Amino acid sequence: MSIEEKFINTIRLLAVDEVSKANSGHPGAPLGLAPTAHVIFKNMKFNPKEPNWPNRDRFVLSNGHACALLYAMLCLYGYKTTVDDLKQFRQVNSKTPGHPEADIDGVEVTTGPLGQGISNAVGLAIAQKQFAARFNTDKYTVSDNYTYCILGDGCLMEGVSSEASSLAGHLQLDNLIAFWDDNHITIDGDTNVAFTENVLERYKAYGWNVLHVANGDDDIDAIQKAIDEAKQTKGKPTLIKVTTVIGYGSLLQGTHGVHGAPLKADDVAQLKKKFGFDPEQSFVIPAEVEEFAAKHVTKNLKVYNDWINLVKNYVAEEKQGAELQRRIDGKLPADWTKALPTYTSSDKALATRKLSEMVLDNITAELPELIGGSADLTGSNLTKAKGTIDFQPPSTGLGDYDGVYIRYGVREHGMGAIMNGIHAFGAGYKAFGGTFLNFVSYASGAVRLSALSEFPVIWVATHDSIGLGEDGPTHQPIETLAHFRATPNLMVWRPADGNEVSAAYQAAIESTHTPSIIALTRQNLPQLEHSSIENALKGGYVVYPVENPDLIIVSSGSEVSLSIDTAKKMAGEGYKVRVVSMAEFLTFDKQPEDYKLSVLPDGVPIMSLEVMSTFGWSKYSHEQFGLNTFGASGKGPDVYKKFGFTVDGVSDKAAKVIEFYQGKQLVSPLKRAFN
Amino acid sequence: MSIEEKFINTIRLLAVDEVSKANSGHPGAPLGLAPTAHVIFKNMKFNPKEPNWPNRDRFVLSNGHACALLYAMLCLYGYKTTVDDLKQFRQVNSKTPGHPEADIDGVEVTTGPLGQGISNAVGLAIAQKQFAARFNTDKYTVSDNYTYCILGDGCLMEGVSSEASSLAGHLQLDNLIAFWDDNHITIDGDTNVAFTENVLERYKAYGWNVLHVANGDDDIDAIQKAIDEAKQTKGKPTLIKVTTVIGYGSLLQGTHGVHGAPLKADDVAQLKKKFGFDPEQSFVIPAEVEEFAAKHVTKNLKVYNDWINLVKNYVAEEKQGAELQRRIDGKLPADWTKALPTYTSSDKALATRKLSEMVLDNITAELPELIGGSADLTGSNLTKAKGTIDFQPPSTGLGDYDGVYIRYGVREHGMGAIMNGIHAFGAGYKAFGGTFLNFVSYASGAVRLSALSEFPVIWVATHDSIGLGEDGPTHQPIETLAHFRATPNLMVWRPADGNEVSAAYQAAIESTHTPSIIALTRQNLPQLEHSSIENALKGGYVVYPVENPDLIIVSSGSEVSLSIDTAKKMAGEGYKVRVVSMAEFLTFDKQPEDYKLSVLPDGVPIMSLEVMSTFGWSKYSHEQFGLNTFGASGKGPDVYKKFGFTVDGVSDKAAKVIEFYQGKQLVSPLKRAFN
Repeated sequence: MSIEEKFINTIRLLAVDEVSKANSGHPGAPLGLAPTAHVIFKNMKFNPKEPNWPNRDRFVLSNGHACALLYAMLCLYGYKTTVDDLKQFRQVNSKTPGHPEADIDGVEVTTGPLGQGISNAVGLAIAQKQFAARFNTDKYTVSDNYTYCILGDGCLMEGVSSEASSLAGHLQLDNLIAFWDDNHITIDGDTNVAFTENVLERYKAYGWNVLHVANGDDDIDAIQKAIDEAKQTKGKPTLIKVTTVIGYGSLLQGTHGVHGAPLKADDVAQLKKKFGFDPEQSFVIPAEVEEFAAKHVTKNLKVYNDWINLVKNYVAEEKQGAELQRRIDGKLPADWTKALPTYTSSDKALATRKLSEMVLDNITAELPELIGGSADLTGSNLTKAKGTIDFQPPSTGLGDYDGVYIRYGVREHGMGAIMNGIHAFGAGYKAFGGTFLNFVSYASGAVRLSALSEFPVIWVATHDSIGLGEDGPTHQPIETLAHFRATPNLMVWRPADGNEVSAAYQAAIESTHTPSIIALTRQNLPQLEHSSIENALKGGYVVYPVENPDLIIVSSGSEVSLSIDTAKKMAGEGYKVRVVSMAEFLTFDKQPEDYKLSVLPDGVPIMSLEVMSTFGWSKYSHEQFGLNTFGASGKGPDVYKKFGFTVDGVSDKAAKVIEFYQGKQLVSPLKRAFN
Repeated sequence: MSIEEKFINTIRLLAVDEVSKANSGHPGAPLGLAPTAHVIFKNMKFNPKEPNWPNRDRFVLSNGHACALLYAMLCLYGYKTTVDDLKQFRQVNSKTPGHPEADIDGVEVTTGPLGQGISNAVGLAIAQKQFAARFNTDKYTVSDNYTYCILGDGCLMEGVSSEASSLAGHLQLDNLIAFWDDNHITIDGDTNVAFTENVLERYKAYGWNVLHVANGDDDIDAIQKAIDEAKQTKGKPTLIKVTTVIGYGSLLQGTHGVHGAPLKADDVAQLKKKFGFDPEQSFVIPAEVEEFAAKHVTKNLKVYNDWINLVKNYVAEEKQGAELQRRIDGKLPADWTKALPTYTSSDKALATRKLSEMVLDNITAELPELIGGSADLTGSNLTKAKGTIDFQPPSTGLGDYDGVYIRYGVREHGMGAIMNGIHAFGAGYKAFGGTFLNFVSYASGAVRLSALSEFPVIWVATHDSIGLGEDGPTHQPIETLAHFRATPNLMVWRPADGNEVSAAYQAAIESTHTPSIIALTRQNLPQLEHSSIENALKGGYVVYPVENPDLIIVSSGSEVSLSIDTAKKMAGEGYKVRVVSMAEFLTFDKQPEDYKLSVLPDGVPIMSLEVMSTFGWSKYSHEQFGLNTFGASGKGPDVYKKFGFTVDGVSDKAAKVIEFYQGKQLVSPLKRAFN
């Protein structure tokens, strides 16, 4: 057995031992993919002690259920993952969870939900192209890494990967090399039952270079040759079909029986024998395998050190030196927030989507790391800042890789996953993407992973309610804010005016671990008297102060000015009504208790007002006025009126709330029996 | 000008007049697509007075924003849509909303959210194949209709259409003819900015027949020829690329300026002149155009009447006659609910996914209209009933078009949209689809349209919580139930045991206007003493009765038995704790007020318990115990323990609630200031 064969078998058996010890997991894909993973890693430059080295090659395991393989690789190459960690595979509080999570050294992105990883990989490749175009000079190559990705049949069937792959072809991302584990097996059995398309022809149609390794189980030379060929192909990403046998070596090889269940003990024993290992031992790493890995790491260490020196010289000599250093340090420019516009109540009424555009116009020059676009709604989302050029292959004549405006096409889910990849690249990138709020839901799978991975990407989500009017209920969000507010670690901003829009951007851009959705109106809103960036950064605050109120209306976005109008009208009827703008739940929740209670105190009935699902508003209110049915097509104001969202309609509900709680002892909804 | 040219120009100008009168909408696509729509309709068989005729040809406008075109067609062909309705385009309470909605006669499916319509069309074609295979005999052709679909660049970029189209190719749906409006324009400008793949090659790779009409603006013969060719192609769906000029005839033709904004008055005037119409008049339908349409309708009426007679004879002669009649009448078989299994508390503990399988095993023989499958998780979702065969092209040898089990592949969003199409076909089809609950979110776009369209499709959503264990937080729903409960007109069942699973299926299958998600466990749950189908059909009921309780725990699914265990333990400590199983919110909300108050009365503190987001539970509780962070990878019971979901953990919280409300006047959370 050659050292490389031994290396591959070590990977295989570590993965099998992980799954067996856990009595849970997926042995099939690791057994089939070990040769591919081995060849990829020996081609990669990385430094296990500096896993965030900006010019490392990236590896994404899109079929995340095969993570026993990835953990084995990380262990063999000296990342933080130890043999003891492998033994804790899939146990509570271990560092080897059931699917790879991005907070683990060497895991670039969280995968498992299928189709995401390959789409993240497209984002990683976009970021590399942009970073290289921005910083490489004739003298200095700061960035030239590749992104490698393994994906399975499942990833290829998911629409999100189709979206991202089509865009990758358009963008000519020749720094992306993907390996399709063509093992002909999915959970339902042979892929023939549902997946008989010609994948390589499809990818060719996307503009990819396509290759085939006929024997991925043994032929590591062919895998190497394919990588070499991919690297020589300019202007196209590469998809390499690697035909493998799932569960290679197992008694059940080639069947879905090896996909998602541990191998039986006798199967493991025969496998170890077959691969030249002692069937009595587990988690074995032969010394020569360790040495092989160590040699590669040592070789890489030189590459790493050369790069460190290169950057040192770059910073000293090149005019973009300071910026490069800042980007590597992951710091925002000092004082960038001064570029955020502020407003007074005498400024004119504008749609918050327009105010968002004004923010982008102002801050883009300050923040070259801000890279984003729209899912083909640029003129509606107003996401293109003045002076930005398109991120496009230079050959198209439509832009340049140095551009920061991405034409995502009508591909919301792909956009979400690509944003995650851009963030994962590092180098301080701030990724944003625009679409209608209602269609952020198309990207739910990616949004959830942003939150879980703690990737602070930003959604510019315009047309945020029935206020969008004529497009009608197919486009009017009802459940959307509830959905995303219920998602852990996700900020959902719904600013009420210009100052709040600026605050939302400040919070979103300064966020290091929490993604944001900024919900913006199509229709104009007045600038409020008591709003300010500082106030809004608290998430919620008193935007219409009234002492000793009979009622507090807590509201967001376009309904804040409606609430204030209602309060003013009710004042004429002898009611004292305070209005609170609750621009972002999570942010408000993090404020000190006494501040929160000053906003939503004991003893006063509180009614929420938002023209969509009332779900979740009981956190801050005793009663909720909202819309728990679908909207309607018509002029925006007509639709508001149809559902009673007028000063008269709101004050009617408000009066009922005051009456209902008359004489009753009321505690703040913030006070709970337990936390 | 030939009569057909006049017909086409009438369509164009009606659409333009609609948009101009509304001062809102999309004139560009209708101007370019009028010839295609005209040729399609003159090839279609339909009866505008019997729009649900089962053997009608179906037409789906996947680029729903072009609906001014569709409404014009419906008006011209004598559906309920009148010229007056066209004049009310995009106004509140009109019958011509901003995007086509399925409750309008002649509109098969609700479109607008891109990519859905073509995917619905795949569902319509699947249903036709199944219906024909089931009922056609040598003597009688009950079903032989085609599904026509127009789609735009946007639809082609969306992942959902990729998923559905790949499956359509696999399934060899030669009854599906799609027209791609190749106008090279999207909202962001030329498609060159983001969409440069070779679409026809991609569809060829999916197994489609692909054709090209080079001049879709004038060459109606070429469109006709393409349809003829499509119909002659067996074993493949057809995609016809129809190259058109967006906004054909407008001064702004060929630019995105005509996409989504009304034409200027002078542009409309020159357009009318150019097309031979009086620029001073609007909404003009020339008499000969009316006549042309009427002739087609008359011809079709004969086809319709022949079919009615055919069915009459079929019912009298064929052994499946009674079943066909029942299906056409849209009635469920009498007494089918007798096949639903029931349980007593002495029956063994089982996972609700397993209990779901037992329901499917029992009812499938009773309900041949039940057609469904899984997104490649058959062995996990347990969705394949005993004895069912695959819905597959006979040539594959894997099944038959008469089969009712669909291998969807890893295509959740496509599955959701296809289910909508299957339902839309009519003939009583009950469509279901299985995946993990967490991945229903991938299909959010389609789920929302099921609810909006009032299509009662069924999601079998297993692995419904952190209880799934080792797969970890990438697979464990937290926000998912809140998201779907916040969606209007969507039942979200989370049954606690076997009787509740049976109830969920009964409600889901009997539902005529509301879709269902049935959330099911991976892990075993005990059969409860007081559960019954009858109780559970109320949505919520007292599952552990205790008189004069100190506390009520309201819970769902796997946490109901945990709540009961907690109540039993606390009884030993002198607390009286009642438990309510809230299996489905919407259903409970519809119960009589006095019943609801008997379940959740005044004067008792109520705590909800569910191992996921607490959003929404305040409807039924004063305090909420849940999980508002992501889950963890580990053995199911270990994960429950980690987050405090044990008898000790719950009773600790319960005691705090009792203490917190001691001596306070409490009203039922059901009592609100207003409704």
